[in-house]
Amino acid sequence: MPNKHFVSADQVTPAFADQLIARAEAFKAGAEPQLTQPVYASNLFFEASTRTHTSFEMAERKLGMTVIPFDPTHSSVTKGETLEDTLRTIAAIGVNVAVIRHPEDAYYTPLIAADVPLHLMNAGDGAGQHPSQMMLDLMTIHEEFGHFAGLRVGIVGDLAHSRVARSDMAMLTKLGAQVTFSGPKAWYTADFAEYGPYVPLKELVPQVDVLMLLRVQLERLTEAETREFSAANYHAQFGLTEELAATMPKQAIIMHPAPVNRDVELASSLVTGPQSRIFTQMKNGVFMRMAMLEWLFK
Amino acid sequence: MPNKHFVSADQVTPAFADQLIARAEAFKAGAEPQLTQPVYASNLFFEASTRTHTSFEMAERKLGMTVIPFDPTHSSVTKGETLEDTLRTIAAIGVNVAVIRHPEDAYYTPLIAADVPLHLMNAGDGAGQHPSQMMLDLMTIHEEFGHFAGLRVGIVGDLAHSRVARSDMAMLTKLGAQVTFSGPKAWYTADFAEYGPYVPLKELVPQVDVLMLLRVQLERLTEAETREFSAANYHAQFGLTEELAATMPKQAIIMHPAPVNRDVELASSLVTGPQSRIFTQMKNGVFMRMAMLEWLFK
Amino acid sequence: MPNKHFVSADQVTPAFADQLIARAEAFKAGAEPQLTQPVYASNLFFEASTRTHTSFEMAERKLGMTVIPFDPTHSSVTKGETLEDTLRTIAAIGVNVAVIRHPEDAYYTPLIAADVPLHLMNAGDGAGQHPSQMMLDLMTIHEEFGHFAGLRVGIVGDLAHSRVARSDMAMLTKLGAQVTFSGPKAWYTADFAEYGPYVPLKELVPQVDVLMLLRVQLERLTEAETREFSAANYHAQFGLTEELAATMPKQAIIMHPAPVNRDVELASSLVTGPQSRIFTQMKNGVFMRMAMLEWLFK
Repeated sequence: MPNKHFVSADQVTPAFADQLIARAEAFKAGAEPQLTQPVYASNLFFEASTRTHTSFEMAERKLGMTVIPFDPTHSSVTKGETLEDTLRTIAAIGVNVAVIRHPEDAYYTPLIAADVPLHLMNAGDGAGQHPSQMMLDLMTIHEEFGHFAGLRVGIVGDLAHSRVARSDMAMLTKLGAQVTFSGPKAWYTADFAEYGPYVPLKELVPQVDVLMLLRVQLERLTEAETREFSAANYHAQFGLTEELAATMPKQAIIMHPAPVNRDVELASSLVTGPQSRIFTQMKNGVFMRMAMLEWLFK
Repeated sequence: MPNKHFVSADQVTPAFADQLIARAEAFKAGAEPQLTQPVYASNLFFEASTRTHTSFEMAERKLGMTVIPFDPTHSSVTKGETLEDTLRTIAAIGVNVAVIRHPEDAYYTPLIAADVPLHLMNAGDGAGQHPSQMMLDLMTIHEEFGHFAGLRVGIVGDLAHSRVARSDMAMLTKLGAQVTFSGPKAWYTADFAEYGPYVPLKELVPQVDVLMLLRVQLERLTEAETREFSAANYHAQFGLTEELAATMPKQAIIMHPAPVNRDVELASSLVTGPQSRIFTQMKNGVFMRMAMLEWLFK
Repeated sequence: MPNKHFVSADQVTPAFADQLIARAEAFKAGAEPQLTQPVYASNLFFEASTRTHTSFEMAERKLGMTVIPFDPTHSSVTKGETLEDTLRTIAAIGVNVAVIRHPEDAYYTPLIAADVPLHLMNAGDGAGQHPSQMMLDLMTIHEEFGHFAGLRVGIVGDLAHSRVARSDMAMLTKLGAQVTFSGPKAWYTADFAEYGPYVPLKELVPQVDVLMLLRVQLERLTEAETREFSAANYHAQFGLTEELAATMPKQAIIMHPAPVNRDVELASSLVTGPQSRIFTQMKNGVFMRMAMLEWLFK
C-alpha cells in the first residue's frame, strides 16, 4: 500500500473538509484516537515556526505517537545531503511520519515522485501551502456558526505574502462563503480579484461575520517595503482599531493566524477581547492536526 | 480557580520551606507523585542553563508529566511576539505549566498581572530570583544537619552577580542560621551588610558549618573587571585552596551552585572530596523541583 | 559494581561481535528488550550527526528508556565547565547512560580514569572510534552472507579521514575476511598497507563481495585539497559509476556510511538500486544500537 500524504490544500474537497472538521470536533469533545499500531513521528522544521511546531508536537503525543527529535539545523543537510536522502534515512531508522516545514515551495513534489517510504505531512512550504492552518481556520468558523454557506468573510492585510489567504479564500468559496478583501491595495493582486472584490476597511468591517486579519510578515518584506513601513501608519490605515472594532456586528469574530503584531494588525486590547478567536484557533489547531495525522494511518 | 505560580523566593515562608523540604526528601526516599490529571509541561529557556534545564526535564518526567519541547531561540519571539502572547499560545495548545528562564528581571510580573492561563515556574530571571536553587540549597543543608537554627553559614565570592546569594541569606536568616560573608570586598555591598558581617576567608573557614562558594560569573563581569581578573590570583586570595580546606571543621560541608570553575573558587581536588556536597545539590535539585512542580497542582 | 562503557572498537573480540550481531538480529526479528530497571539516557552530541543521533534516539525509545534532552551547544560547557563535570552533573540528575559524540580523539579516556558515575556509549570521537558504525556494518554483512571468512571486502575512498575504515578493516581481518583498498592513492597510508593491498578500482570492483564506499568528507579536507577537489573528476576516477557497477558480481553488495554525496562516491541511480544496502545499514543501526545499549546494563 503506498503511503498517504497530506501536503496540499488542493487535496481537500468540501466532503473531506467536513470529515476532518467532524473528527477534530470529536477529539475536542474527548474522543479517543484510533491508531492501531505504534507510530513514530519526526518534525523537520527547516524554518522557525513555534506555534505550528509545538502544536504538532502536542497533537502527536495526544495521539499516542512517539516523537523522535530531529533538528535540521544540526543535520547532515549541512553536509550536502539531499532532502530525499534525509527522509529515506529517518524512514530506515523507523520513523513513520515526517511533519515538514520548508522554505522551498512544493518541496514535497519530488519526494512523492521518488516514493519516499513514509508519510508526509506538510506544515508549510515557502509561500505555498499550509493545509493545517487552513483546516484549523475552517474548524474555528464551523464551530462558531455551524455552517459556511452565506457567511461573509473579510480577509485583510498582507495578502501577497500569505500562504494561508490563498487556500482559505479558495476553500471558503467552494464551501459557499462570500469572500471580500481589504488592506493595502498593492497586495490585492489579480488572483485575489477572481475570488472577491476589494472593499475599503471601514465599509468592510460592519458587514462581516468573520474578519480574518493577516500578519504583516515584516521579515518577508523587500528592502524598499521595510524602509517605508510604519507600524502606526499601517494600524491607522489598515489595522483594526478599537473605534473600527466597535462597528463590527455583534456575532462577528476576529481571526488571525498569529504571531500577532499588537497595535499593527489590530489594537492590543482586542487580542483577548470577546470577539477574538485567535487563541481558539490555536487550541483547535491541536485537534485538527490530530485528525489530519490520524487520517494518514486510516 | 486562578493558576498558582512559583516565581519568587519571597513566596517561601519558613513553614512552606519545611513543607517543600519534607516532600522533596520523601521523593528522594521513593514516594510516588500525586498528580491527579495528565499534565503537559514546557521548558522555555531564553538563557543557556544546562543543569537547571536538565534537572527540570528529569523532575517533570519523574512526576509523569508529558514534556512538550519549545526552543525560544527558534521561536516567534524572533518574529516580534510578546512573551505574554507566546505563553497564551502554548497554554491554548494545551500546556499546563511553563518553566521559564529569562534574562529580564521579574519578567513574570506582567505575565501574572495579565493572568496568563497556565502555571508559571521561575527557573531564574536576570540577576533576580532563582527559587528552585534556593530550595535545593536549603534541602541539602537540612539533609545534612536536620535543622537550620544556629548553623554558621559562610557565603563566599561573587555576591554582586549572584541571584542565589540574596535569596539564600534572607531565608537562612529567617530560619535561624547565622550568615557571614567573604570574598572580594568590592562585592560585599550594603544589602549584604544588613544580614551579616564580612570576615576574612582565613578566619571564616575554621568557623563554618556550611561553606557556600559562589561561582565567578566571568560572562557577567564588566570589561574592566575581565581585564583585571586572574584565575590564579582569585584562587590564592579568595578561593578554597587545599591548605585552607584543611582548616575546615570536620562536620562542615562545601556547597557550590555550579558550574564550578575548578582551581578558581575551589581546588580541583575538593570538587569530589568527602566534604563536597556539590553533586548532592544537583541530585537534590531533581527531588526539590518535583516537590515544587507538584505543589502547583495541589 | 563499576559502570560498563562501550567506547572503542578495540573492545570488540570476534566472540563479542557475534554475540552483539545475534542480539541485534533478534531485535530485528521482534525480540523484546530485557532491561530490568528504568533507564534514563542522554545524548550529548558536541558535533552534528543526524543519522547517528536519530538512530540512538530511536534505539533508546525502543528499549523503553526515558530520554532526557541535552543540547551541548546551549550548555555550561560554554561557561567553561569540564566534560567530566558535565557528566557528573547529568549523572547526579539521574541519567544512567550518556551517548556522546565529541570532536576530540579519545575524549573518553580521562572520563573513565576519573570513574564518572554513569555508563558511556561512544557515538564517535574525532578521527578516532565509531564502534556502533563498525558494528552495524558487520551486522549488515553478516545478514547478507551468514559468515565473514573468505569474504572479499573492498574499501574505497577517503581512507585518511575515516574513523570507520580503520575499525572495519581490523575487525574484518580478525573475522577472516580479505580486505583490499582503492581510491586516491595519497589516502592509502602505511597503516592500511598492513591490512591489505591497494588495487585499482576497475580491477577491484569485479572481485568483491562487499564494496564499502567511504564518504568524501569535504568539510574535513585541507584548504589545498578543497581547492583541487572536483566532484566530477572524483566520480570519474574513484567513484562507482553505472558502467563500473555493471562489472560487480551479482551477489555483491554496496555499502556506504552516509550521508552520501550523490554522483561523487557513487552514481545517484545506484543509491536505491538492488545491490545497495545503504538504507539497510541505517535500519540495522537501530537494532545494533539497541543490542549495544542493552549490553551496558547486563
